[in-house]
Amino acid sequence: MTHDAIEVILAKRDGGELSDSQIDWVIDAYTRGVVADEQMSALAMAILLRGMNRREIARWTAAMIATGERMSFAGLSRPTADKHSTGGVGDKITLPLAPLVAACGVAVPQLSGRGLGHTGGTLDKLEAIPGWRASITNDEMLRQLEEVGAVVCAAGAGLAPADKKLYALRDVTGTVEAIPLIASSIMSKKIAEGTGALVLDVKVGAGAFMRRLDQARELAETMVALGTDAGVRTVALLTDMDTPLGLTAGNGLEVAESVEVLAGGGPADVVELTLALAREMLAAAGVTGLDPADKLADGSAMDVWRRMIAAQGGDPDAPMPVAREQHVVAAPASGTLTRLDAMGVGLAAWRLGAGRERKEDAVQAGAGVVWHARPGDTVTAGQPLFTLHTDEPARFDRALESLAGAYDIDPSGARFTPRPLLLDRVG
Amino acid sequence: MTHDAIEVILAKRDGGELSDSQIDWVIDAYTRGVVADEQMSALAMAILLRGMNRREIARWTAAMIATGERMSFAGLSRPTADKHSTGGVGDKITLPLAPLVAACGVAVPQLSGRGLGHTGGTLDKLEAIPGWRASITNDEMLRQLEEVGAVVCAAGAGLAPADKKLYALRDVTGTVEAIPLIASSIMSKKIAEGTGALVLDVKVGAGAFMRRLDQARELAETMVALGTDAGVRTVALLTDMDTPLGLTAGNGLEVAESVEVLAGGGPADVVELTLALAREMLAAAGVTGLDPADKLADGSAMDVWRRMIAAQGGDPDAPMPVAREQHVVAAPASGTLTRLDAMGVGLAAWRLGAGRERKEDAVQAGAGVVWHARPGDTVTAGQPLFTLHTDEPARFDRALESLAGAYDIDPSGARFTPRPLLLDRVG
Repeated sequence: MTHDAIEVILAKRDGGELSDSQIDWVIDAYTRGVVADEQMSALAMAILLRGMNRREIARWTAAMIATGERMSFAGLSRPTADKHSTGGVGDKITLPLAPLVAACGVAVPQLSGRGLGHTGGTLDKLEAIPGWRASITNDEMLRQLEEVGAVVCAAGAGLAPADKKLYALRDVTGTVEAIPLIASSIMSKKIAEGTGALVLDVKVGAGAFMRRLDQARELAETMVALGTDAGVRTVALLTDMDTPLGLTAGNGLEVAESVEVLAGGGPADVVELTLALAREMLAAAGVTGLDPADKLADGSAMDVWRRMIAAQGGDPDAPMPVAREQHVVAAPASGTLTRLDAMGVGLAAWRLGAGRERKEDAVQAGAGVVWHARPGDTVTAGQPLFTLHTDEPARFDRALESLAGAYDIDPSGARFTPRPLLLDRVG
Repeated sequence: MTHDAIEVILAKRDGGELSDSQIDWVIDAYTRGVVADEQMSALAMAILLRGMNRREIARWTAAMIATGERMSFAGLSRPTADKHSTGGVGDKITLPLAPLVAACGVAVPQLSGRGLGHTGGTLDKLEAIPGWRASITNDEMLRQLEEVGAVVCAAGAGLAPADKKLYALRDVTGTVEAIPLIASSIMSKKIAEGTGALVLDVKVGAGAFMRRLDQARELAETMVALGTDAGVRTVALLTDMDTPLGLTAGNGLEVAESVEVLAGGGPADVVELTLALAREMLAAAGVTGLDPADKLADGSAMDVWRRMIAAQGGDPDAPMPVAREQHVVAAPASGTLTRLDAMGVGLAAWRLGAGRERKEDAVQAGAGVVWHARPGDTVTAGQPLFTLHTDEPARFDRALESLAGAYDIDPSGARFTPRPLLLDRVG
C-alpha cells in the first residue's frame, strides 16, 4: 500500500494511531529520501507531543531494522549477552563488565558509540590505549567472540541505517527526548545486532537524559517489551545518575579505574554496578551457579581483558597517557559532601577536552576530572576535592565554572545517606 | 541577542512562550537560511500543537513583515480598503466587489493569489479574460488605483518573503491548519501592503479550512486584533461555506457570473455577500451615506469593472472561453435540494481542470461546474442538476465521483430552510 508524507503527519498530529502500513512506508521512504527531512522532523515533533502506543513503537522499530542488515551469533559455541547504558558521567562499566561476563562463559558483543556532549563514549575511552582500534570486520568480530569471548567495537554502517539518519535529524530539531523514538533507536540496533540476551542500564537523575524515575521506568518498560517481543531476553536496571560513577570522568582516567576493578579493587559503586549487571546478563543468557565476583577475585576477568585489548591491536601493559597540565580544586570547607552533580562534572570533563563538540572533533586521551570524595564522605577544608587534567591550560577556566555550583558540603555533622545506586528493576 | 534553533524549538515544544527576541531571531534566521527547513517544520508543528498567545502572534507577524518591503498608499487622493477571503468554492466575490467599492470612492488594492487545491484563485479567474495580465509594477498599481480606483494583481515577491518561504514549507509538512500561523500569514501580507482598512471574509463549513464556527471565530478575532494593533481598521464577517457560492465554480464561468452581478442580476447569495462586504469596506474606510446597491443599479460599478480590466490589457467585451466538452448530470429524484457540498463541488471543478495540482500546472479557462439549483430549491427527476465543463473528456469520471455523494434531495415535501449566508461579525 502506498501513502504520502502529509497523510502520515496529519494522522499523528491529530492524535491518531499510525497503521503498520503507514509506519513501514514512512520509514522506508525517509531512508530512500522520498520523505524529506522537513517532513520527518514535523512527524517526529508530532510523535514527541502525541506519543505512540506499544504496537506503533514495535512496528516503528521493526521498520527501522528492515532498512539494514541483521547479524547473527547463532554459529557461536556459547550464548550471547549485550549491555546498553542510556548514558551517564563516569560510566566506564562496559570496560570491566564485558571481560567479566566473558570469563563466566557468555560471549559479549558490545557495539558501542562515541561520545557527543557531556556523556563519554566507550570507544573514546578504549582508544586511549595505545594501538587499540575500534573498527573491525564482522568476521573478525565473530572470531574474537569465539576465541576471547568479548568484543567492544564500532557498529558498522549496515545496522538500521534509518536510525542513523533519523538520529542525526532529531539531534538538530529538538526531537531527541521522545520515549518512543529513544526506545526504538536503541532497540533497533540491538535487535539487528542479533544478541540473545540484553541488559539495559537506564540512568536516572541530573546527569542523565531521564531526570525523573517515572520517565526512566516508562522508557525501560518500553524497551523491555520491544526486546522481549523480538525474541531477545531483555531486562533493565534503573540506576542513579545524580552522582557520577566512580572517581573519574575522562578517557584514559576511566580505563585506569576499570583496570583497578578488574584487579580486584576500584571504587565500590563501580564494582557494585558491574557485578549487578553481570549477574543479570548471566541470568538472561541462562548461565546459573556462577558468582561473577569470583572471576574478579581469581584474575580470570583481567585475563580476558588483556586478550580482548590485544586482539584489537592494543597494548594492555602500556601506561595510560597523562595530560600535560593538572589543576587542583581544594575543598572550601570541612564537612560532609552531600551532593556531587553528574552534569556539572560531565560538562567539566567535556570542556577539559575529554569529549567533543562536533562529530569531527578529536578528544584528548588524558583529559578529565578526578574527584577525591563521593557523597557521604567527609572532606577537609584545603584538601584536594577535584583534580582537573588537560593538555590545554586555557580550558581550565570554563571547566571550573561547570564545577562551581556542582557540589554541596554540609558542615553540621548531620547524618547523610546518599540515594542508593540500584533504584529499580524492570523485566 | 542571539539564539539558536534548538533553544527556540524546545521552548515552544515544552509549552512555553517565545520571547520577542526569540521570534525576531528565528524568523530572520529562517529567511536567511540559517535556520534549516527541518528545524522550522519542527517548530511549526510545536506551534500547531501548543499554540501561541496574542503577543507571540503579533510579534511573529511583525517579524515576517520586517523581512521585506512595505508599501504605502498614503499618496492617494482617496482612502483604501482591501478584502481578504480565507478561501471557498465558487468564491468570485472579489470580481464584482472591487469595482463596486471603487465606484463608491474608495480605492481597492487587491493583491491576490492563484488557486492550489479545491479552492479557486482570483488571478486564475481573471486570466480567463483574453489579454488580461496579473503582473504589474508598483507604479502601475498606484496609477491605476488613482485613475480607476481598483486593482486586482499578483503580490510582488518583496512583501513578507518569510511568509512565502514558510507557507511553502507548511504546505508539505502538515502544518497548514494552525490558527496562529494562518492569521500571521494573511495579516503580514495585508499589513505590509499598506491598506488603510481591511474586511476579512472568514469562511466556515465543509468547503473551508475552518469547519467549525468556533474555530473560524477564533481565527477572525486573532486577525482583527492583529490588524487593529497594526493601525489597520479591520473587521471580519463569518460566512457560510457548507454550500458553494452562486451557481458556478470555474475560471471563465465565475467571471461571467460576476459580470451578471455587475449588470444588476446574478445569484442572490453572490449579490448579498458582495453588498455586505462592500458596506463593511465603506464603513471601515470612513465613507458614509452611500448605498452600494445603487452603484450596481446605475451601472457605475460595471463602468469601473470595464476600465479595471482594460487597464491591465483585458478586453471587457470578449466572450468568455467555452470548454470543448459538456456533460449534464440529471437529478435522480424529485424533491427539495437539502444539501450541496462545497468540498465535493470544489473537487469536481478542480478535477475538470479549473485548478492545479502542482504550482507549475496550467489551468483551463473554460473548465468547471454549473449547478442548476441551490439548497432550498425544488428539483425535478430527469432535469439537469449539474453541467460539467472541460476540454478533456477523460476528466469527467473522477469529477463525477466527487459529485456522487455531494448532494441530498428530500422527496417528502417537508419545509427546508438553509443556513444563512452571514453567520457572524467580529470587530
